[in-house]
Amino acid sequence: MTTRERAMLHPNYSVDDRGHFCIGGVDSVMLAKKYGTPLYVLDEDAVRRNCRTYYSSVKKHFPPGSTAIYASKALSFKRIYPVINEEGLGADVASAGELYIAKSAGFPMEKILFHGNGKSEADIRFALECSIGCFVVDNREELDTLNRCAGEMGIRQKIQLRLTPGIDPHTFDAVNTGKIDSKFGTAIATGQAFSLTSYALTLRNLDLQGFHCHIGSQIFDDRPFCDAADIMLDYIATVRDKTGFTASVLNLGGGFAVRYTHDDPEISIEENIARLGSHIMDRCGELHIPVPAIILEPGRSIVADAGVTLYTVENVKTIEDYKNYVTVDGGMADNPRYALYRSPYTVLIANRAAANPDALYTIAGRCCESGDMIQEDVPLPAPQRGDIAAVLVTGAYNYSMASNYNWLCRPALVMLRGGTETLAIRHETFADLAACQL
Amino acid sequence: MTTRERAMLHPNYSVDDRGHFCIGGVDSVMLAKKYGTPLYVLDEDAVRRNCRTYYSSVKKHFPPGSTAIYASKALSFKRIYPVINEEGLGADVASAGELYIAKSAGFPMEKILFHGNGKSEADIRFALECSIGCFVVDNREELDTLNRCAGEMGIRQKIQLRLTPGIDPHTFDAVNTGKIDSKFGTAIATGQAFSLTSYALTLRNLDLQGFHCHIGSQIFDDRPFCDAADIMLDYIATVRDKTGFTASVLNLGGGFAVRYTHDDPEISIEENIARLGSHIMDRCGELHIPVPAIILEPGRSIVADAGVTLYTVENVKTIEDYKNYVTVDGGMADNPRYALYRSPYTVLIANRAAANPDALYTIAGRCCESGDMIQEDVPLPAPQRGDIAAVLVTGAYNYSMASNYNWLCRPALVMLRGGTETLAIRHETFADLAACQL
Repeated sequence: MTTRERAMLHPNYSVDDRGHFCIGGVDSVMLAKKYGTPLYVLDEDAVRRNCRTYYSSVKKHFPPGSTAIYASKALSFKRIYPVINEEGLGADVASAGELYIAKSAGFPMEKILFHGNGKSEADIRFALECSIGCFVVDNREELDTLNRCAGEMGIRQKIQLRLTPGIDPHTFDAVNTGKIDSKFGTAIATGQAFSLTSYALTLRNLDLQGFHCHIGSQIFDDRPFCDAADIMLDYIATVRDKTGFTASVLNLGGGFAVRYTHDDPEISIEENIARLGSHIMDRCGELHIPVPAIILEPGRSIVADAGVTLYTVENVKTIEDYKNYVTVDGGMADNPRYALYRSPYTVLIANRAAANPDALYTIAGRCCESGDMIQEDVPLPAPQRGDIAAVLVTGAYNYSMASNYNWLCRPALVMLRGGTETLAIRHETFADLAACQL
Repeated sequence: MTTRERAMLHPNYSVDDRGHFCIGGVDSVMLAKKYGTPLYVLDEDAVRRNCRTYYSSVKKHFPPGSTAIYASKALSFKRIYPVINEEGLGADVASAGELYIAKSAGFPMEKILFHGNGKSEADIRFALECSIGCFVVDNREELDTLNRCAGEMGIRQKIQLRLTPGIDPHTFDAVNTGKIDSKFGTAIATGQAFSLTSYALTLRNLDLQGFHCHIGSQIFDDRPFCDAADIMLDYIATVRDKTGFTASVLNLGGGFAVRYTHDDPEISIEENIARLGSHIMDRCGELHIPVPAIILEPGRSIVADAGVTLYTVENVKTIEDYKNYVTVDGGMADNPRYALYRSPYTVLIANRAAANPDALYTIAGRCCESGDMIQEDVPLPAPQRGDIAAVLVTGAYNYSMASNYNWLCRPALVMLRGGTETLAIRHETFADLAACQL
């Protein structure tokens, strides 16, 4: 595969006549020079396309009332919320902080779903005050606290219950959340889910809509989702038979995979949703239950391929008989995913994106930490100080997981639409770093 | 071992008559109630004791001119710098951001050492403008840039060169930085270090003082340091013989270990420094070289045991035949070290620190991420919602590595001195989270 072909990992990536890597048709080298590096770039057009794929597939292949809800934890900042809203998606939040950002961006509160295994009472009160659409309740303590707070505020709050169906989708441990041994939700297999459901139905200030599960992330086909749906629909039928309560909502969480490198297969989200929709209809028929509205919660697959991170190469080291290191001006502080999970990434020299590689290089971050790597053994064309390195598919879980380790300032984020750019997040300053220090 | 004994991991930890866990004699439960959770607590008296151990041991057992320099990356905020300075230590910084914080706290710039494998030209210029004491130069590109910038500013800048001695101290890969295959420094074994040294000696605006190495962290005895010193002193002798340049400084970096749990041995920093000092004197005699001033760069062993993180328990889950989970109101956002390195920690229920455990519990963070754990299988006395969980020995690499993942606000930090507390870092607010979002 040529370097140029390697650059074309997603349809919004290209290489121009000068050999510059482009995102959404915009020259990444120009962006790096104009805004400085490290720089997060997010292609809004790609975000919108991904939203539309979910929106239209869900409308077409899922029962009426079904929706796609954007998982804010993948990438949350003010200017993304109008995009998500305009494209017809709801949003889930994992904390009061994410809710605050969504609210301050004018996102409709009735389209908010509140997730999390450790919501505090303050979080719960804040979300009730915001009149959010629905809580995904994780556990008994949350159920009691929410019922009490809602009662005090004269609210009857819609909820879903988070359950663990016991599916192992064969992904990494750290992003695999649907198996029985999980910090999230309540297991169906142990009978604890049924106890919690029965209890929830007795609580006067809570209006149980249905059930949620999330089996993991980076799932490349519909099979694990169909398996999860089977277990959840069986559970819905059981609950109906035993209690008379019929769930009107089944939330299957997120998890459709994104291509990080050419080793990952290409998948069609629409085809997967079509197969999953058809499977659910059939299964509801077999179980003689009304088809619930289906919710999906894509995060990564909405924003990941829309994002690229640009760095400047600071130095290149060749250690004979060992390795070549390319040090860039960012690293685990702006993208901790390799340090955390050995996550694969495609890396290019953006200003020579058509030049063929001369050797393998390990992309090292600038933090004083040996584990600060972006990627190991990447084929590159003899990088030099001053080159721009582009790390592709960084839209998800990069800015959102960023730290200030070594007191590095978090990078700016530039959004691209129709070939022009807007600064959506400014680069942190030293004064920002010191803001909380007394 | 009783719970009370388990709590007494370091001399500044205790359990009072009510069974409350105390830090520096201060009731942690009171601190949690007064300042809210999560809360970082730092015992300034313990920081000062640790500084004094290094200061007096270095003065007593190392040659004249030797110093201990605090590694800011472990924990950097304004109010720590006067403490470090008053106790006679210098400070190293790993970025312009850390330098900014140290400078804004009035730390003497001549006592600053600037580290890092990817210093940008902007970083270099800022540090030159600050008139810092010394750069630890990592690579050829930095050497050229620093020489050029110093020349333009009419400065002759003191430097050390970072070398890799090829020592494997048998610690984790991610914190093991002295082996030949490293993103840091230049290898002695490949001859590259000698080329770089010879080149550095030709640069008119740089004043080479000596050499630096850092073999790793969490090292429990002096043996790896003695091995590193042997290689570095041999190198100093070789450089003298071949070039006539005699290094006046040998910087052996950081790395003395800290006890995180009772499984870790107790070590005496002073005894290790005494053995290392004696070894260095002997070796210099054998090599017929003047004894260089020795620099140590403790970070973790200055602040780790001075720190404790307090959380509130949000819920407790028992999954029969699997595991018990205790969810706290923080997690990988304020302490990513278990997610990154499976780092061991001692965890207690602070309000019942003398109660014996009933079972093993996994301490889960509140982030929407399965990998968000603080520690697995900890013996605890039947935790309940509202309990205060204390995670011990969190002074190093917790606040400094913290993120805002899930838009969680970073906790406040309270410093304790002589039994009274001062708020040194305030809790982040939602407005802080949004500060850079346009």
